[in-house]
Parts: sequence; structure tokens; C-alpha cells
Amino acid sequence: MLTSRPSLGPIPTRSNISGTALQSKLLVLNAGSSSLKFKIFGVEPLVAGMGGMFDRIGDSANCTLKASAPDPLGGKARKWELKLPASDHTSALQEILGFISGHVSGSFSSEVVAVGHRVVHGLDISAPVLLDAVALDRIREAAVFAPLHNPAGLQGIEAAQRVFEGVPQVAVFDTAFHATMPPYAYMYGIPYDLYEKHQIRRYGFHGTSHKYLVDQAAAMLGKSVSETNAITCHLGNGSSVAAVLNGRCVDTSMGMTPLEGLLMGTRCGDVDPAVVLHIESQLGLSAKETDNLLNKKSGLLGVTGSSDLRAVIEAAQKGEARAQLGLDMLVHRIKKYIGAYTAVLGGKVDAVIFSAGIGENSSLLRGLVLEGFQGLGMEVDPELNQQAVGGRQGDISTPGSRVKLLVIPTDEELSIAQQTLQVVGTGSASAGAIAA
Amino acid sequence: MLTSRPSLGPIPTRSNISGTALQSKLLVLNAGSSSLKFKIFGVEPLVAGMGGMFDRIGDSANCTLKASAPDPLGGKARKWELKLPASDHTSALQEILGFISGHVSGSFSSEVVAVGHRVVHGLDISAPVLLDAVALDRIREAAVFAPLHNPAGLQGIEAAQRVFEGVPQVAVFDTAFHATMPPYAYMYGIPYDLYEKHQIRRYGFHGTSHKYLVDQAAAMLGKSVSETNAITCHLGNGSSVAAVLNGRCVDTSMGMTPLEGLLMGTRCGDVDPAVVLHIESQLGLSAKETDNLLNKKSGLLGVTGSSDLRAVIEAAQKGEARAQLGLDMLVHRIKKYIGAYTAVLGGKVDAVIFSAGIGENSSLLRGLVLEGFQGLGMEVDPELNQQAVGGRQGDISTPGSRVKLLVIPTDEELSIAQQTLQVVGTGSASAGAIAA
Repeated sequence: MLTSRPSLGPIPTRSNISGTALQSKLLVLNAGSSSLKFKIFGVEPLVAGMGGMFDRIGDSANCTLKASAPDPLGGKARKWELKLPASDHTSALQEILGFISGHVSGSFSSEVVAVGHRVVHGLDISAPVLLDAVALDRIREAAVFAPLHNPAGLQGIEAAQRVFEGVPQVAVFDTAFHATMPPYAYMYGIPYDLYEKHQIRRYGFHGTSHKYLVDQAAAMLGKSVSETNAITCHLGNGSSVAAVLNGRCVDTSMGMTPLEGLLMGTRCGDVDPAVVLHIESQLGLSAKETDNLLNKKSGLLGVTGSSDLRAVIEAAQKGEARAQLGLDMLVHRIKKYIGAYTAVLGGKVDAVIFSAGIGENSSLLRGLVLEGFQGLGMEVDPELNQQAVGGRQGDISTPGSRVKLLVIPTDEELSIAQQTLQVVGTGSASAGAIAA
Repeated sequence: MLTSRPSLGPIPTRSNISGTALQSKLLVLNAGSSSLKFKIFGVEPLVAGMGGMFDRIGDSANCTLKASAPDPLGGKARKWELKLPASDHTSALQEILGFISGHVSGSFSSEVVAVGHRVVHGLDISAPVLLDAVALDRIREAAVFAPLHNPAGLQGIEAAQRVFEGVPQVAVFDTAFHATMPPYAYMYGIPYDLYEKHQIRRYGFHGTSHKYLVDQAAAMLGKSVSETNAITCHLGNGSSVAAVLNGRCVDTSMGMTPLEGLLMGTRCGDVDPAVVLHIESQLGLSAKETDNLLNKKSGLLGVTGSSDLRAVIEAAQKGEARAQLGLDMLVHRIKKYIGAYTAVLGGKVDAVIFSAGIGENSSLLRGLVLEGFQGLGMEVDPELNQQAVGGRQGDISTPGSRVKLLVIPTDEELSIAQQTLQVVGTGSASAGAIAA
């Protein structure tokens, strides 16, 4: 059965936010080193509004704001693209707000009741937190593992704190959903003091997406989340798989950084650790150059010459051997993780879920991954598989398949909005409330 | 059903070795950097005789020869330990031969019809080879990936070539059984030219053991090897798992080097490649020091303080948390590989095989690994599991278990002897015959 979009889960109550107007808005921000993505949500009920991205911040001649908003009359989305100057994240945010005031709602800034920030690395923090000095320190501390992402996230947070003084700000971590992993899954086989002194361990990423997928799958299966066992495959330019037992993550393929695991667009994924040292010594590369090679020049790009799976599939279909190899490697590794996590879950898998750019759109890849998996209780319906593309949610398994095979479009912004509301609505912030 | 030792497979015919006496002997050598292991086999039928090890070669004051031989009357094995001088592998081999002449057979040296050498790394060579100049060049070339082992192996070969001039010498590679892996299993997700120019790929190790286990399992299952699908777990101080489809290896956990895969005695196994670079930069270690840390100070030793699983289990049973963690990590990773390879084999697994020091002796570990695997068609009989220790071969699965769970003592020397005879018996050497 295919439906056009996932239905939203129950909206968290916001009883502790007193005196909010009916036009209460929530702003979700996702800051990169020179970019700032944003999305507006109406709060009761939680409904996505305008979203967009400010790009090339600091490059005043070329700064661009792209935005799109649903048409209030249900027609085609409205789209904008403007050149606007912004020397830093604060001025970019102010330009975004000015644009929204002019094009959507003049009173928007005063309607914002909370801001939710995507933060990549939160160490072992297991829940979204209200941003106070303690939380900011933890994000700074975690920057050693996410040297590009966390400082960028902090710039977005500082910009929003300046612009929305006194408005609760929440950090939602990519790592948080994985904080429930048991130690035997997150520890590496290296000297123990590297964990004690340097916090080297598996953290996992894409947690906001994996969490969202499990919540949606539970709703589709008619089960409570805490009864749901699933293997969630977030397959995009970056990709990861998670094993979820009783609604909680028990293992995931990404590690201390997002480099481990599946073959990705430009990242190598799993590799003999001796290869890293061998590359350094054989090619005379520094640790930094090797890091760049493994993160930016590897994966599908390194094997096939293209990081774009659609181009790789097209080339493979024309008989190009290296494109076929890259595709086969990608499929083989996803198969191995699904098998490994089937074992981790003791064979009791309710659903395997495919999501993100590749997982939502490549029925060919899904078909290849699931080929010959009847022995694992997984049988795909080829027709349903072909139909579940382009943002459509669906169950693509045959009626006889013991394990449900689901395609679920992920929505990390919506999940960040939901989690932000949960924190400000209940006041149950792990790191304490920020000063009003 | 438990039997005391595995029955031997059919002995290869040796029709091409003409004029051999009935006392024909075969010598198997396994050279380390300062050691030389040996084992004598009678040839028709292939029967193991005296074996031993020359240790501390080059350290003239402390060189030791240990040897043991089955008692001809079926009593306890006879044992020797002697201090003998040896400045290099050639003189060690001469001392060994002198010892054998004096204690077993005066005519031994002239009875040797072939010498089989264990060589760790053979690149993508898929079969044992007669040692000629081409083969020796390949072993030297492969030393870049096995900088300690291959040069040692060459020393053993050169010693034997000097001592047994004109006798066929065969190299049996640890990597050979894995040469049948498809490219999508052996390629890493790194730039393709690192494979083309530097031969960086997965090779796999313990191949002689994995091959032996599959041959034995096929006999136990009453199937031909080419119909046998198995997951072979060689669990010793170094450990690896292999997926075997129709008798041929299609994937294995060790990689370009023996560092990848399971948690081992002192090796880290799988780890985020970024961890390697992070250790270098955070601890200020060189590539060589990091290599040493990951190979010699990691694994069970790094996590628990002991590389000996028996000690770790004992400490865990006394409630020591880090020992328990190390045991749990070991179990978790074996579980993941069995699951991954079940997927690789499309769920069609005839047998999971446990072997080597840990796999043959720790019924506790086997029980933990197989716990909750009924969903994968694997059900262990606790009593049979407990009985299959101390070199006993057995089927430890319940009658209802879809997948057979087998404990098979490995015998790498016997496999090297068998493969050596196959090469000299049929003359079908990949690298051609050596000059007589």
C-alpha cells in the first residue's frame, strides 16, 4: 500500500509554554561552515512552512538565499532565489528574517517560540537539550570529532541567540539516538585508556533520521515504538544503518566519525585500519591528507569516478565495468549490515526500512540489496518496490514476507521540530534550562 | 556425535613422483623471523610423524629445539627439548635434520620427496605453487603487506633449497583460499588507482585452515565440497571468519593484512579508519608506532589487560567489568560476522564451523555466540557443545537445527602436506616447475 506522504505522529503537548499566540512558530536551523539551512513550522498543529538555505556566507558578492514555501491555496510551491549580502551567520539569519517578514509574515520574528538546532556531534548525550553554557561547552568539546560540523553548528546557535534573545534554543544531536548502544557495540578494540582519556568510541550519526524512521515504522506496523525491532537504512550521500531493538538503537554502522560503515558518495566506509597507515607510508601522505583522501576522494567517487549513484547506475547499465563494481560494492556492504544486524537482533526483525536520497528513490538498489534474502524472511514485491519512489511511503514486501520491507521518506527537520517542542513543552532538558 | 579426531580426506595420488622408496617422507616448514617449525609426514598413506620447533635462531646461547613424536607402540608421545646452536635458518634446519637422523631415522634426509612451506602472503595467487624464481619474486613482492612474515618465510625456503637440493619445494599461501572472492568483496572503497598501482585490496588469511575446515565439514555433511555452503570461524590468537559458497571463499573478515575483522588477542580488528588518524594526531604517534599499537597492544589485551581468553573469562566470572566487556565485544563481533555472511550466502548456510584454539576449546564462547540464533536457523545443543573440547570434533547442533553447528579441530600442517602432495603429485603448478 502506497500513500503520498507519511502521516505525522501525535503532536507533543506544549502546556508549559504559557501565553503563546495562536501564530506560534518554530524555527529549525542547520548551520554549515558557510551555509545556513532553515525551516519554519507552525506549532499547533505542527505544520511545515517555508524552508530554504542561505549559501556562501562570507562571500559577499555571491551570497544566495534560496527559499520555497507551500502555496496557501494548495498549488505549486512558491520559490525564490536572491542575492543578499551576509558577512557571517548572524547577518545571514537577519537577512532570512527580513525576507520572511517581507514575503510571508511581518510579525514572524516575534512569533518564534523556540529554535531547534541540528548539531552533528553531541558525544554521549542521549536526548535533545536546552542550550545553556554547559551544553555549549559539550558541543565545543565534541568538535574534536567533528572539526568542520560542530564549530559551524555553534555559529548558527550564536547567531540565533543574538537574534532571538530569551527564546528557548534546543540542540538536537545526530549522535543522540545512538547513545543507547551497549558498551560492547560502541567500544573499539583499542587500549582502554584511549576511551577513558580521549573518548574514542563509536558514536553513530544520522540519529535524527533513524529515530524518525523507527517512529514512523511503528505507526505503520501498528505497534508501539518500544515494541518495534527494525533495521533502518539511511542511504544518501552519507549512509548509515542502525539496529533498533525495542525502539532503541543497539548498533550502527558509522563510528567515532561518519567515515565508518557503508560505501558512501565520497567516503570509504569500512577498511582494514592497516590500509590507512599503508597509504600514508606508500604515498607519503600526512594524516590530514589521508583524512581528505578517505573522506572526499573515496567511496563511489573513488571507485567509479562519480559520487552520484544515478550516474553510476546509468554507466553500469551501459556496461562500464568500474561503475558496475561500485554498485556491486555498495549492494554487498548493505547486505552485510542487514545480515549483521539481523544477528544482533537475534533474528527478530519486524521491519527493514529504506530512506534518504538513495533509499527513497532507487528501487533498483533496493531490489539488488534484497535479492536472495528469502532465507532471512525478507521477500520484496517487485511492483510495489518500483512504485515506492519520489517521496512515496510504502510497504514493498510480499504478503508472505515475515519481515516488513518499508520505504519511508525521512524528514530530519520535522523530527528536530518535534524534539524541540518536546524539550520546551515539557521542560525536561537534560542539561537544564537556559536563562530566560 | 563426537569422534576423537577428524578422519583424513582421500590421499592425493603421487603417480608423477617416480622411483620413490616406500619410506617417502614429506617435510612441512613454517618459518618465523627467529623460529622454524617443522613436521614430518609419511606419504603413503599421509600420516603425521615427529614435529617441533627451533626457537631463538641467531641467539646462539639460547637456541632451543623442542620436538615431539608419536610413540610407535601407541603410548604417550615422546618429547625432547635441547639447546642447540644455530646462527641462521639453514643451520637450524641442519640441526633439526641431525636430530631426526639420530633419534628417528638415519636415512630421513634422503627420504624427503617434497618440502611444503607455509607462506603468509601470496597476493592473489589462488593455489599452492612449486617454488621457482617467479614464485620467489611474488613472495618478495608481497612482503610489502607482510613485512615480518614473508621475509621469514623466504629464509625458511632458502634454507630448505640449500639443504634439499633438487627436491621439489612448494609454497602454500595463507591468502590462497581467499583468491576466489569476487571483486565487490575484496575491493576497498578507496581511489581505484590505489588498487591498480599499489595492489591495496582485501586478501584474507588463515586460508589453509579455512580450506581444511570446509573439506572436513563436507565429509561430515556427506556432501561434495563444491556443494557446501559454510561459515568458517577460525578463532585463535588471530581470528578470522570466511563465507564459503559452493566450496569457494566469497568473503572473509581479514583484509589487506591480518589486522581487520574480529577482536583478536592483541589486534584491534574493525575500527573507524578515522580512529587511526585521530590516534596519530591526538597522541603524536608515527604511522609505525600506531601500527604497533593497533597490532600488539590492542584487541583483548588493550580492552581487558590480557590477550588470553581463558584468563579473560575467568576474570569476567569473578565480576571484573572490563574482562566482561572484552568478552562481550568478542562475542558481538563474531555474531555480526556470522549474520553478515548468512546474508552474503543468501541465507543458505549448511554449517557454521568453529575451530582453532578458542573455537575448539571454549564451549562458553560458542554458546554465547550462538545464543538467540534460532531465528537464523541455528540451535545449539548445550550438552554436545560442552563435550566438544580438547581437540574433539563434533556436531553440536540440535536435531532440529536447520544449520549444522560443527566443531572441527584445524590442522594447517596436514593441509599444507596435502596441498604439497597435490602439486608435486600432479605437476600442475601455477608457477611452473623449479629447475632440478
